[in-house]
Amino acid sequence: MQSIKFTAQASADGVIERDFTLGEIPGVLWSPASGPERAPLVFMGHGGGTHKKWPAMTGRARRLVTGCGFHVAVVDAPGHGDRPRTAYDEQEIAALYRAREAGEPEGPIVVRYNAQLAERAVPEWRATLDALQELPGIGTGGPVGFFGLNMATAIGVPFVADDPRFTAAVFGLHWPDALAETARRITIPVEYAMQWDDEHIPRASALALFDAFASKEKTLHANSGRHKELPRFESDSAVRFFARHLRATAVQEV
Amino acid sequence: MQSIKFTAQASADGVIERDFTLGEIPGVLWSPASGPERAPLVFMGHGGGTHKKWPAMTGRARRLVTGCGFHVAVVDAPGHGDRPRTAYDEQEIAALYRAREAGEPEGPIVVRYNAQLAERAVPEWRATLDALQELPGIGTGGPVGFFGLNMATAIGVPFVADDPRFTAAVFGLHWPDALAETARRITIPVEYAMQWDDEHIPRASALALFDAFASKEKTLHANSGRHKELPRFESDSAVRFFARHLRATAVQEV
Repeated sequence: MQSIKFTAQASADGVIERDFTLGEIPGVLWSPASGPERAPLVFMGHGGGTHKKWPAMTGRARRLVTGCGFHVAVVDAPGHGDRPRTAYDEQEIAALYRAREAGEPEGPIVVRYNAQLAERAVPEWRATLDALQELPGIGTGGPVGFFGLNMATAIGVPFVADDPRFTAAVFGLHWPDALAETARRITIPVEYAMQWDDEHIPRASALALFDAFASKEKTLHANSGRHKELPRFESDSAVRFFARHLRATAVQEV
Repeated sequence: MQSIKFTAQASADGVIERDFTLGEIPGVLWSPASGPERAPLVFMGHGGGTHKKWPAMTGRARRLVTGCGFHVAVVDAPGHGDRPRTAYDEQEIAALYRAREAGEPEGPIVVRYNAQLAERAVPEWRATLDALQELPGIGTGGPVGFFGLNMATAIGVPFVADDPRFTAAVFGLHWPDALAETARRITIPVEYAMQWDDEHIPRASALALFDAFASKEKTLHANSGRHKELPRFESDSAVRFFARHLRATAVQEV
């Protein structure tokens, strides 16, 4: 098994930020500067076209670390951030831009490309979670959350579905096409975000993916507005969701 | 114009609870024991078959007063709490129990009865709001919230729709039949609660009522579970919703 190699460390306002690599995969781990010996981990994923230190990632991580005392990790997805694109990546990105310029639906391309990315990313994310759990501040057996919207839901649903380590997950903003069947195997508490006036994802499609989760406890948050207009307060809601579900089962109270 | 007459006062944990009457209508006003000279008001309504001091009412009021420093008022709806039932009330309540025992749909009876109750209640609620705004701690021109689920949504939608004093509203758990047309006149921020597995309100009906609100800012919270299983954390969410919308426009910051 590969191990996490820390490559840089910075600290501000009670949050320690450590860049790491796991083989070829670059990632970042945010941790509380002080606290108990061990704390729960939230594994995050970034959206399509962004990367591990995108403002949405650093903002959510800071809220989770300072608000809950959790560790938060995210890695660059294949073809994203500091990682090379394959010929297939370039082809799909070009197809997406062509559709966008022509005013044609982006959904079929995003669904197809994200499904392919998920096949490449899930084994990497599993290896990353394995390695993170080797760190003494995280360890095995403690609660683990998953937090990922857009492309990170496309990767996160198959990642979470077959891994009993997860305690609770926040998903959202995706089509059900490649995911609904897998979502039916997910039974942990889920909070799901959709945009009521999404210009890309039909309302019925978003509702169908939420409906597919087999979780006894699941909550849909639908906000007025277009695809990219998810309100900032949904990040705070996700933090409270993880506080409820990861703290209650924490090895040590944080 | 009739005035509020206070009939009893109690105080505990920073909350002053004052029973009042406005003519024949009994109500209760919860206020912060200390704070600024004026503070926003949240007007609440109770659900069908309950009353102004039902635990859900006192619990929500306490959260709003201690969490936000707001005033919170609720009155007994016609035929509820300390108020007499008419022959029509008795008839509809009997019809509801018969349907329940026979396993027949309750929806048509509840929709019809609540629409009639709304016709009786809305003028009373308007007079109560008028009178509450005569109190120096509340006053006119400040932000006003409305918070009511179930029957209180059936009364609250027509109450809020034609009254420019309201700043933000929390509704939920009702059929669109008698309400959707009126909801299309509501443009203030709305948070709407539904139960994903509601045995009385079909999913498409709940979504249709949420869709009807003309508000630029609206949020649907759909939770797994049956009609009466609304999670307790939705009360906390409503408190945060009012904190966002009433504080921002408060005459004085609270």
